[in-house]
Amino acid sequence: MEPAAGASSQKMAESWSFLDTVEPNFRPLVVIELAKGTKEETIEWFTKRIVDKKANGGAQLLVKPLGTENGEENIYLVGASHLRLLLGAETVGLVKECNDNSMRTFTYSSRKTFKDFADDNHNFLTIAECQYIIKHELENLRAKDEKMIPGYPQAKLYPGKSIDEIRCYFGETIALYFGFLEYFTFALIPMAVIGIPYYVFAWEDYDKYVMFATFNLLWSTVILEVWKRICAIMTYRWGTLLMKRQFEEPRPGFHGVLGINPITGKEEPVYSSIKRQIRIYLVSLPFVCLCLYFSLYVMMIYFDLEQWALDYHEENESTFSNLMLFVPSIIYAVVIEIMNRIYRYAAEFLTSWENHRLESSYQNHLILKVLVFNFLNCFASLFYIAFVLFDMKLLRQSLATLLITSQIINQFAESVFPYWLQKRHKKRMKKRMYAMKTDTDLSLVEQVNLEKEMGTYFGTFDDYLELFLQFGYVSLFSCVYPLAAVFAVLNNITEIYSDALKMCRVYKRPFAEPTANIGVWQLAFETMSVISVVTNCILIGMSPQVNALFPDSKMDLMLTVALVEHLLLAIKFIMAFVIPDKPRDIQIKLAKLEFESLEALKQQQMKLAAESLKE
Amino acid sequence: MEPAAGASSQKMAESWSFLDTVEPNFRPLVVIELAKGTKEETIEWFTKRIVDKKANGGAQLLVKPLGTENGEENIYLVGASHLRLLLGAETVGLVKECNDNSMRTFTYSSRKTFKDFADDNHNFLTIAECQYIIKHELENLRAKDEKMIPGYPQAKLYPGKSIDEIRCYFGETIALYFGFLEYFTFALIPMAVIGIPYYVFAWEDYDKYVMFATFNLLWSTVILEVWKRICAIMTYRWGTLLMKRQFEEPRPGFHGVLGINPITGKEEPVYSSIKRQIRIYLVSLPFVCLCLYFSLYVMMIYFDLEQWALDYHEENESTFSNLMLFVPSIIYAVVIEIMNRIYRYAAEFLTSWENHRLESSYQNHLILKVLVFNFLNCFASLFYIAFVLFDMKLLRQSLATLLITSQIINQFAESVFPYWLQKRHKKRMKKRMYAMKTDTDLSLVEQVNLEKEMGTYFGTFDDYLELFLQFGYVSLFSCVYPLAAVFAVLNNITEIYSDALKMCRVYKRPFAEPTANIGVWQLAFETMSVISVVTNCILIGMSPQVNALFPDSKMDLMLTVALVEHLLLAIKFIMAFVIPDKPRDIQIKLAKLEFESLEALKQQQMKLAAESLKE
Repeated sequence: MEPAAGASSQKMAESWSFLDTVEPNFRPLVVIELAKGTKEETIEWFTKRIVDKKANGGAQLLVKPLGTENGEENIYLVGASHLRLLLGAETVGLVKECNDNSMRTFTYSSRKTFKDFADDNHNFLTIAECQYIIKHELENLRAKDEKMIPGYPQAKLYPGKSIDEIRCYFGETIALYFGFLEYFTFALIPMAVIGIPYYVFAWEDYDKYVMFATFNLLWSTVILEVWKRICAIMTYRWGTLLMKRQFEEPRPGFHGVLGINPITGKEEPVYSSIKRQIRIYLVSLPFVCLCLYFSLYVMMIYFDLEQWALDYHEENESTFSNLMLFVPSIIYAVVIEIMNRIYRYAAEFLTSWENHRLESSYQNHLILKVLVFNFLNCFASLFYIAFVLFDMKLLRQSLATLLITSQIINQFAESVFPYWLQKRHKKRMKKRMYAMKTDTDLSLVEQVNLEKEMGTYFGTFDDYLELFLQFGYVSLFSCVYPLAAVFAVLNNITEIYSDALKMCRVYKRPFAEPTANIGVWQLAFETMSVISVVTNCILIGMSPQVNALFPDSKMDLMLTVALVEHLLLAIKFIMAFVIPDKPRDIQIKLAKLEFESLEALKQQQMKLAAESLKE
Repeated sequence: MEPAAGASSQKMAESWSFLDTVEPNFRPLVVIELAKGTKEETIEWFTKRIVDKKANGGAQLLVKPLGTENGEENIYLVGASHLRLLLGAETVGLVKECNDNSMRTFTYSSRKTFKDFADDNHNFLTIAECQYIIKHELENLRAKDEKMIPGYPQAKLYPGKSIDEIRCYFGETIALYFGFLEYFTFALIPMAVIGIPYYVFAWEDYDKYVMFATFNLLWSTVILEVWKRICAIMTYRWGTLLMKRQFEEPRPGFHGVLGINPITGKEEPVYSSIKRQIRIYLVSLPFVCLCLYFSLYVMMIYFDLEQWALDYHEENESTFSNLMLFVPSIIYAVVIEIMNRIYRYAAEFLTSWENHRLESSYQNHLILKVLVFNFLNCFASLFYIAFVLFDMKLLRQSLATLLITSQIINQFAESVFPYWLQKRHKKRMKKRMYAMKTDTDLSLVEQVNLEKEMGTYFGTFDDYLELFLQFGYVSLFSCVYPLAAVFAVLNNITEIYSDALKMCRVYKRPFAEPTANIGVWQLAFETMSVISVVTNCILIGMSPQVNALFPDSKMDLMLTVALVEHLLLAIKFIMAFVIPDKPRDIQIKLAKLEFESLEALKQQQMKLAAESLKE
């Protein structure tokens, strides 16, 4: 179908100007809900902006009101033509696979060289990519000067599938979380397999003991390094490893006096970096320290209560006193949970008040605050039992209790309870729907109204935090309680399903977000594995079996422990340094791309130089 | 001077085709010496390749034989026209300052926007940049299929000047070395100033002691972090921070069966990575371990000799026996020096045999091998004295002896001796010249013949190694010998001059090489500062003053020391993490450039998409 030469400019015009109004098959991709009571003219103007041509500052998308009888609900379905999506894919810099199996940045002009591309193949872009493109266009609209209530996408529900399918539907951030969860579960299996005989046969000989701890330390280093490589393989195939980072716009909550951004030269709110530093170091930091101190204080009260309950039990031994023994633990577990929640709100408020310009820097500061507090809250009592009370039996018992209860609470609070709430709501909704007997496309309207009531998923933060704390339980005191890995594996197998359930049926479908790695979590896990070297070495040094080896001199024992610890840390760092972060074939592919782009740049510069000389 | 439209294509042709033969002012930039006995036709063909047009596969440079009467010496001067150099600057991707003070990649078409640019300003490119461009062009010639004996550049001698002037003359690699040397000397001054009263008043109270060590540790972390920032400021101004890394060609020594390079798709020697790994881990690694063991063995012999000399002195006290006391130290110092030299050759041979494809990977493996061995050779005896013999007096004495003698030997072997050799040669040369009475440009011929005999400077490796070992002497046992910093400062002040002398008068002028940082040395210095935390903590823990604080329990002392050590290490890592590697204004400038290039890319893609639709 070669177009005649005369038709070319008309075709061009069509592609950017008329295409959106002539699309016959409207496929809704994103649902926008405007605030109740939005004025008619505002709505009209807003929908016009969405469909308007690019040249007029619009997004050139398709929009259709959701046809419910009672027009109160300002719900709109947003879609886009196939061509519009392809041009958008170029704008956001998507990287796709070519016919020669290499990954390249998609451009509309070179579209024919991409695998599975055909002008009539509407599945060339995954549904997650389509949504990302539309979200990007809508946000650019907002960046101009409007306000928009964040919409939620049309959600087609399906349960846990392979990571690639998850990626096509939910996008890379969530797929990478599931990938990490799956990888981490598999990686825990060797630990669990080795841990079981330790528990069953109560192996507490010196050599087996040390072997287990050493294996644990090397294992934790290796799995974190190998994860980087697996992550690189996955994100290369998905194209996000190569995707150029978009320039970051200020986050919605950012405010300041209007000024000139030194980077873009555009007018936007500016906020002095010194003021932010003052807020961070003079307010947030002391506040966090105070919270940490408070958390330690609560822990000391718990130990007092525990002691009191024990004394009470010894004085008047009865069923009541026996029950009383559990009360302090239960109170403490509940208090920890409450403190975590309150602190989370405080951390979000403070970080937002620090007024970070970029979403990424906001996230980093928030994660750091929450991580430190959660770490202390969850592990302080264990550290106290291990290194102040020197009570290994109590340590094992507390570790088991904390690990198992936190897993049960999490599974329940995260998915079972919200799922039940949502199911109840769905029934009520269905009844109401049938009562109304609307004549428009019932299933779509029904679904949108149903999903409107679903909770919003606030990103993978809590899910990673859960895994992080679990990693702590498994690795920090591994040589005291080898069974921890078994429970972690069992938990994670159900976690995969409960997280899938949560994302598919409990929450509104989150927007897809491309990402190349798990970011700051890699650092958090690596820090945890460094701390675990220290704790495990001390635990081994404290064990009666090791103490028996140095009957005469405690000094020699301590020197040996310190030496071994430093050696292990050195080995850890050398291993992290020696194991390449990307597998060799990915390295070669990346180098090839870089070489080609350098060559192309050279050619282009030669051409430009020649042209400029001609003028 | 607007050229008429008709003249444009002629001018274009001129720029790339005729320009080199019409240049009136030939300025020699690089001198090439061909092997003796090179055939006449080879020379003719070679010089033709240099002047040939780009289109014919030549380098389009200027070449002129050095006019000596006896035509045996195949010495050629290579130069280039101003325009050729500007076009070459674009090819190698030089980054220069614009009129608006921002740094941008130079292109010929945008030449008018650059600071100090004028068509008749031949100093727009520094002499180091000109040489780098010519070297790049000549090497690209070689990469085709010729052999070329590395030439040496015309050297205009001048002694130590400001870093920026050094950079213009010697290029960034050497300028950065001098920058680091200067910075490091300044950074040592606070340590030296604090160290003097410690020595003079023999302050050995517990609190002053610990204060000094703590100050030392924080100081070493801070100076290494601050150096990164200063380095970023310098290299931003020089343009190398922004310069795109050129694609690395295989290093000259690399060999293998001819195959297809998976990255470039070109035919070139290929060598299996598994074979290389086998050579590294099964040959080089055991060899290095063996050498380390041998070095420790020699050290133990030295201590035996020392003990024997001491016994001998005690038995028959005489002048002879007194002199005998120094013999073991002298023998050991000489043996260390010899072992270092032999090992260096072995390391070079092994690393070359490992057959690394890239110069950078060759350098990294060589540096690692040499560093580990030199570290052990220089510091093993100190570690042994400190942590096995527990003899602080001997430690202080050995440290002082090693530091001062190594400084004197280095200064002498590095510059004074070669300078004397070269001076003697110069006199002989002058005599011969006047005897010949040639009528060509005497001073140039004289200088070229003179410099031909000079040694070749093999890069900054040895200079950095010297600073690295010095840093070890200053920081590892700082609390035992606070005067070390004073000697280091004194040495470095003369080192700046002796290095300048060495590079200007003793060696052939090295080719300029752009670089953005001091590379693997940053890591080496940081590792040294981590090790120094450990050694200083142990030294403080071993001091009688600190021991007196824990009269009852050695255990408590050791626990305290271990705790403090871990705290200091944690503080170090947090500081390294919190202090940004680039100052804020450089960050903003880089972000601005990135923003602009992303915007330009977007514009270009839009344009291309529009064009492709038109077709």
